[in-house]
Amino acid sequence: MGKTRLEAFSDGVLAIIITIMVLEMKVPHGATLDALWPVLPVFLSYVLSFVYVGIYWNNHHHMLHLVRSVSGGILWANLHLLFWLSLLPFATGWMGENHFAAVPSALYGTVLLMAALAYWILQRSIIRVQGPESALAGALGRDWKGKLSPLIYVAGIVFSACAPGLGMGFYAGAALLWLVPDRRIERVVAQSHD
Amino acid sequence: MGKTRLEAFSDGVLAIIITIMVLEMKVPHGATLDALWPVLPVFLSYVLSFVYVGIYWNNHHHMLHLVRSVSGGILWANLHLLFWLSLLPFATGWMGENHFAAVPSALYGTVLLMAALAYWILQRSIIRVQGPESALAGALGRDWKGKLSPLIYVAGIVFSACAPGLGMGFYAGAALLWLVPDRRIERVVAQSHD
Amino acid sequence: MGKTRLEAFSDGVLAIIITIMVLEMKVPHGATLDALWPVLPVFLSYVLSFVYVGIYWNNHHHMLHLVRSVSGGILWANLHLLFWLSLLPFATGWMGENHFAAVPSALYGTVLLMAALAYWILQRSIIRVQGPESALAGALGRDWKGKLSPLIYVAGIVFSACAPGLGMGFYAGAALLWLVPDRRIERVVAQSHD
Amino acid sequence: MGKTRLEAFSDGVLAIIITIMVLEMKVPHGATLDALWPVLPVFLSYVLSFVYVGIYWNNHHHMLHLVRSVSGGILWANLHLLFWLSLLPFATGWMGENHFAAVPSALYGTVLLMAALAYWILQRSIIRVQGPESALAGALGRDWKGKLSPLIYVAGIVFSACAPGLGMGFYAGAALLWLVPDRRIERVVAQSHD
Repeated sequence: MGKTRLEAFSDGVLAIIITIMVLEMKVPHGATLDALWPVLPVFLSYVLSFVYVGIYWNNHHHMLHLVRSVSGGILWANLHLLFWLSLLPFATGWMGENHFAAVPSALYGTVLLMAALAYWILQRSIIRVQGPESALAGALGRDWKGKLSPLIYVAGIVFSACAPGLGMGFYAGAALLWLVPDRRIERVVAQSHD
Repeated sequence: MGKTRLEAFSDGVLAIIITIMVLEMKVPHGATLDALWPVLPVFLSYVLSFVYVGIYWNNHHHMLHLVRSVSGGILWANLHLLFWLSLLPFATGWMGENHFAAVPSALYGTVLLMAALAYWILQRSIIRVQGPESALAGALGRDWKGKLSPLIYVAGIVFSACAPGLGMGFYAGAALLWLVPDRRIERVVAQSHD
Repeated sequence: MGKTRLEAFSDGVLAIIITIMVLEMKVPHGATLDALWPVLPVFLSYVLSFVYVGIYWNNHHHMLHLVRSVSGGILWANLHLLFWLSLLPFATGWMGENHFAAVPSALYGTVLLMAALAYWILQRSIIRVQGPESALAGALGRDWKGKLSPLIYVAGIVFSACAPGLGMGFYAGAALLWLVPDRRIERVVAQSHD
Repeated sequence: MGKTRLEAFSDGVLAIIITIMVLEMKVPHGATLDALWPVLPVFLSYVLSFVYVGIYWNNHHHMLHLVRSVSGGILWANLHLLFWLSLLPFATGWMGENHFAAVPSALYGTVLLMAALAYWILQRSIIRVQGPESALAGALGRDWKGKLSPLIYVAGIVFSACAPGLGMGFYAGAALLWLVPDRRIERVVAQSHD
């Protein structure tokens, strides 16, 4: 089984998720700057979720680069990842409309946590098919980012209850961690082209 | 006629269906766990529909793998399948918002039944073009899953009237049946690559 | 300029149009068959529009098959076609919710008419680039369908005022005309592969 | 890294943006021409935004034609461009519903300005990777359109406060400027094929 349609389908779903999130920002009724003000928290949540979907698309893009063939298990692990990401617009809208209150922030973190878990399962499925000597396993190395970020999400979920916006701070921090492109895989790809 | 655009268009439509279903989950107004509670039935319906679209995408992906050229009849049989799947978000939202009541559950099952019928017509159209000795006809074999699942949908439609959630149980059971990847086609594909 | 991205972008837009139209069918509040009743006209409009987008996708697919390179003019003629088709969900929803009343039905016909005009302009742009001896010009021949259907749309717009549903009848008739696949182009494609 | 998925993802996001904007045009309740009247300003905003997304898709298409490989920086510069364009539906709806009032028109211009800036950053990222002797740098030349249009957006933002619709006039003027296809790049592409 080739990976072309898996990539095309994932790109499609991620493109739709990243774009329909903006529909959660309801057009305000007034025409003044004041009318725009209540939209601000939803906008901030949107920015964070946009960055997260961008990170997932980016990492997915890099990871699939090292995949040659796709098994049924990989197809379902990929759909499982897309499922959790598809809940981001809902979680984003709820967190934004409630100004980063405790429960919505915790739910947002839970969605991030489950997506991270699903990404890890997808990675494992690929490595299981390719074998432990695979390019992906080598490229990941010790994968400290993949191990650290779930801990940050858990911390964000826990601290969401303390103060509005605190959870959001943790999630934004974990996003910054990933914004640095995954040089590990880029290096391996570059070597394999030598 | 090549099959590339047929695949691309189908992937696009399926990706949009699977993602806009989440828009039926309306962001609740309160910020408590209680406010999330009424969303739960819609969420459960969403999970089931997500799995169904995933199954259709998966099987479609496998089936198209055995198709070389595409006739006008196949194009329209494919659009017919996409039509019934496009009604899933509506049926999902209605069933979820009414907590798996009789009529909405029966409508949901009807959409599943019509989609199964449309898939079967698409299969027939492909085999008619390829001939009875085709790879697809061979791969399908006796196709007991394809024959059993419409019966389960009919049972689900009938039993929807008995108790809320009973129909849903049937539909979930049929989904489990399909979650096992279609090894018949994978085997044939593997052999044809030998 | 290659045509790959033109096809991909058109497929994307058409896939989204065909799928978001279903969002105009609002989930009813009751859980009975009666509650479903008012959705019926919107559903019927949806079926017609689904068929029309399917026809356009099909014909577009066939036409682009005979195109080798794409100029700036063709890109804009294609966007112009997509613009009119993007108004279909709005026109569909308005016509359906008002039970095929005069003005909404006339607007629906106008959108169909403008889309037909835009398709004709796109055809002309391609033939202008390829020359009058081109495969597309040959495949179209006298193009009686392309000349007849705008007349039917005009008749539908005019007769919409007479009785609710009459315009819809004309539009459905024109759709039936196109449901027969465009054998002209299929024949030329088949010959060029000989 | 290849550019295929970057193109596919961008096409997907742009196709969705251009299509969901039409969802801001709410189906009116009455069935008369009068009921359609209030939708007109939203429709005019939609036309302008459709043209802008078309321009961006067109220019993006031309620019990517001169790109061979894609770095992590280019991926993020591209996502940054898509982010600002994803705000167009919101800004379009707000401006249209408020009949081109001062603040919404200024916001619309700001989104255009930021998108222009993001496009310029993307151009710079590509040239930085390719070197100053690159085909893209040569094709852009003095890039007077790219330098003039941000000034027009700023003028539109400033003059939005003077009279409703004045800002819209500036933005429409800048769009006209770009509707002429980018012959610079077409010429370079044509030469490189010689």
